[in-house]
Amino acid sequence: MSNEAEKLNHLRHSLAHLLAAAVLEMYPGTKNTIGPAIENGFYYDFDFVSPISDKDLPKIEKKMREMLKSWKSFESKEVKQKEALETYKDNLYKIELINEIANKKEKITFYTSGKFTDLCRGGHLENPAKEIKADAFKLDRVAGAYWRGDEKNKMLTRIYGLAFETREELDTYIAQVEEAKKRDHKKLGKELDLFTFSELVGAGLPLWTPNGTLIRDELDSFVWKLRQAVGYKRVDIPHITKKELYETSGHWDKFKDDLFRITTREGHEFAMKPMNCPHHTQIFARRQWSYREMPERYASTTKVYRDEQTGELAGLSRVRSITQDDAHVFCRNGQVKEEISKIYDIVKTFYGAFGFTLTPRLSLHDPKNMSAYLGTEEVWLKAEEELRSIVKKKGEIALEAVGEAAFYGPKIDFMAKDSLGREWQVATIMGSIERFLAILIEHLAGAFPLWLSPVQMSVMPISEAHHKFATEVYEKLKSSDIRAELNLDNESLGKKIRSFKLAKIPYAIVIGDKEVESKMLTVEKRDGTKENISVEDLLKKLKEEIKDHK
Amino acid sequence: MSNEAEKLNHLRHSLAHLLAAAVLEMYPGTKNTIGPAIENGFYYDFDFVSPISDKDLPKIEKKMREMLKSWKSFESKEVKQKEALETYKDNLYKIELINEIANKKEKITFYTSGKFTDLCRGGHLENPAKEIKADAFKLDRVAGAYWRGDEKNKMLTRIYGLAFETREELDTYIAQVEEAKKRDHKKLGKELDLFTFSELVGAGLPLWTPNGTLIRDELDSFVWKLRQAVGYKRVDIPHITKKELYETSGHWDKFKDDLFRITTREGHEFAMKPMNCPHHTQIFARRQWSYREMPERYASTTKVYRDEQTGELAGLSRVRSITQDDAHVFCRNGQVKEEISKIYDIVKTFYGAFGFTLTPRLSLHDPKNMSAYLGTEEVWLKAEEELRSIVKKKGEIALEAVGEAAFYGPKIDFMAKDSLGREWQVATIMGSIERFLAILIEHLAGAFPLWLSPVQMSVMPISEAHHKFATEVYEKLKSSDIRAELNLDNESLGKKIRSFKLAKIPYAIVIGDKEVESKMLTVEKRDGTKENISVEDLLKKLKEEIKDHK
Repeated sequence: MSNEAEKLNHLRHSLAHLLAAAVLEMYPGTKNTIGPAIENGFYYDFDFVSPISDKDLPKIEKKMREMLKSWKSFESKEVKQKEALETYKDNLYKIELINEIANKKEKITFYTSGKFTDLCRGGHLENPAKEIKADAFKLDRVAGAYWRGDEKNKMLTRIYGLAFETREELDTYIAQVEEAKKRDHKKLGKELDLFTFSELVGAGLPLWTPNGTLIRDELDSFVWKLRQAVGYKRVDIPHITKKELYETSGHWDKFKDDLFRITTREGHEFAMKPMNCPHHTQIFARRQWSYREMPERYASTTKVYRDEQTGELAGLSRVRSITQDDAHVFCRNGQVKEEISKIYDIVKTFYGAFGFTLTPRLSLHDPKNMSAYLGTEEVWLKAEEELRSIVKKKGEIALEAVGEAAFYGPKIDFMAKDSLGREWQVATIMGSIERFLAILIEHLAGAFPLWLSPVQMSVMPISEAHHKFATEVYEKLKSSDIRAELNLDNESLGKKIRSFKLAKIPYAIVIGDKEVESKMLTVEKRDGTKENISVEDLLKKLKEEIKDHK
Repeated sequence: MSNEAEKLNHLRHSLAHLLAAAVLEMYPGTKNTIGPAIENGFYYDFDFVSPISDKDLPKIEKKMREMLKSWKSFESKEVKQKEALETYKDNLYKIELINEIANKKEKITFYTSGKFTDLCRGGHLENPAKEIKADAFKLDRVAGAYWRGDEKNKMLTRIYGLAFETREELDTYIAQVEEAKKRDHKKLGKELDLFTFSELVGAGLPLWTPNGTLIRDELDSFVWKLRQAVGYKRVDIPHITKKELYETSGHWDKFKDDLFRITTREGHEFAMKPMNCPHHTQIFARRQWSYREMPERYASTTKVYRDEQTGELAGLSRVRSITQDDAHVFCRNGQVKEEISKIYDIVKTFYGAFGFTLTPRLSLHDPKNMSAYLGTEEVWLKAEEELRSIVKKKGEIALEAVGEAAFYGPKIDFMAKDSLGREWQVATIMGSIERFLAILIEHLAGAFPLWLSPVQMSVMPISEAHHKFATEVYEKLKSSDIRAELNLDNESLGKKIRSFKLAKIPYAIVIGDKEVESKMLTVEKRDGTKENISVEDLLKKLKEEIKDHK
């Protein structure tokens, strides 16, 4: 741990003590247990006489700030088991801890700041009153937690706190959390009606609504156009196979628990495919090829299935039915470089269209662990040098990650930074549509670009007198393949505008007297900017925006 | 059986006797067993002293024709068991039959024509010599067959014969069989490289090559456009589900053995979907709907899986991974008629595009068996009357098939007649892409229309001097999204033309001196017709042909 990180850790741990001090003073009879520093703050677990809630946190926080002023040092004292037990004679939790420490022949230490003493291993600030900024911490929430994480034990009350060195850092963090909550793809997925889960179908098996399916199809068709332009051909494969395919490929052992296995009525063992390589390979193997026919490039957008544990499933980020836009190239040695270069360009174009910052990463072998890889080190070094030269030729600089290669070869991976500054490893060849959509929804906060929006344009007449012209405009949009909706609801314009913004529709056309008369349209973007434009110019503009994936 | 069908049956059975008479005379020591009439002809099973083959059939046929002249009657005689056993004392097969007949207390009869007598139940012509045309039958082939169909018994030699009332009927049938053999979708599928099967992946699980996948995608996109135009929306679903979904829907019991079942690592029971209805229903169930929002129309092109028995699998006609372009409409009672009418039109347009003759068929309930259906007879009669009125409104006349309804309702099915005159029941809503392609490949003999052809145009320069202009033309075609190939192989033009016809490519452009000079193209269709046309006119013509699905 760096000095800085250690200092922050000490700050957070000191605050856990301060929290315990405040609670014990305010709620007599409470038993305090343990309170560590954690990422972004700290917590402390208590056994309260009567339950508290989030509403009680501000007054505890206030008490902490008062007490902080007098916490000018942390003093430690080694004590004997007997003395320690005597001090905590009414606290069964501390007694359990003291006896454990004694059994391990470790030192028992008490730490004191202000008037509060706690059984503790240490790791505090020297002068909390001076080093902790009173406005740089905040009690966050109350949660239940079993004593020592064991559900057979008593449920305690855990109080979480956030803590940073400065108020600015605390504010930034809180804002980021708020923003991430608003952008949560599970929440937005429901609000924008993109996908749903069913108790009867099961966890980790998303059902895609018309809106979500449209976005999936548009994404897939974008990638397919990029692939098609460089000579890929689509193939189609079943989702199951005889065991023998995976025994031959080695996946039967490698995927073990992750395979959904099937025993047929005739007693044969089948499996659902967890990846597509062996199936694609069987298509290639259908005939003999001349070297002149290479490369042969196969692509499929298809679902693979993995028996993930229920506890590990999360929205679209971790699912059991995973849609891959997968591709395999069968080529001569001398063609490898060009084929990788083509894939590199596809990945850049695809992620670039959404405003992700993309950094290439070379995933290399670990020279200290050659036994984990197929082939000789010489072959590996040569292959890695080729990948390096591809990145260089693209005018980019790659991070190098030793030990991150696949067992069969090195890879170029890409790290994508989203609009919240979070970094995601996006797989060599796109990964899965589900995971990508989880990231994309949060990256865009659900405001999809025009070409991806299920509804692209809302046409809103102000009153009934404007319905006729509005319907004409709507029909023109529809016949030009613009996904328009016509909002004839008997509602105020203000309400219509609000619901169009909530639905994150890219454009709205408001039609009133002026528009009916002039036949010019007032087009409002979801960011609030407005434009006056003719129907013809609008159609031209929209078509271009869609074509360019803007 | 009609009189005519009975007479044909008697003719065929008489010929089985004639075959046995000829064989016994030509191959002394042969034991004859049984010889019935079958569809298109007859067979007789023999236990030969030494094996015969297809090569021996012409001389047996010749002998039959000789003997036929003297077969002027069939005389029957009832015999006692003892006498019958004495007659067949050297033939264990006949002894077995005689004892069985006697045990059942039935009459034992011998039938004689010419000099030949056989144990038989009867059913012959009165005067074979007069009633059988010597050129209207033919011995077809030799095959192995176990005595009484039981593989524990001895393998006998079965001789198959074809027989009709006239020479013309026989010739027509033989030509049809030859044509069907040439058109066999398994054979054409391999020749045109549309799909393949892998031992490792397993039987009934086709792997679709680039050519086959392109055809599948084009078909799907054609159907989708028809659906989209009438308001369907695409949804996307996983291929598996928890058991609970099918327990609720009733499929768990109904599909029993046909379900591919999965037990997850956590011990839950899952199944692969054998149909899509319950999944689509779960998408609809995600929220409350107002009656004003109806109808809600969902469509998915997706694979369903059924654990078919290996012995029942056949090419694409019966597979385990079945691609359905499936759709479900959720609507009000008053909207049912219009929705069915829309589907009716889609089916007509789709099948019409391929030149199938389509006849609607009303699949109705069986009034004698009401317990097999949900709901009251009154409801059924009303629903059936509605379907009848839809067909009537389309100006068509439906066949009515009593007892062919689904348990939950009556249906409009369609019977499609293909170019070989064979009739297929095509499911209400399209059925599966695999089965459709099996039928389509044979219907078209692999000569797909332009819009479905993996390669649409072959550009063939006569010699190297024409490569440049040929390449220019090829590039123009490509940039207009025509799937063209450029044949620069160092081969004679004759050979190039032959291979373009074998590959069933719709068009070829031959480029020689004349074309280079005039910049006009000579376009040859796969049926041999030729046309002189400019590049621009050709592109226009091709685009229209593709758009119109001609």
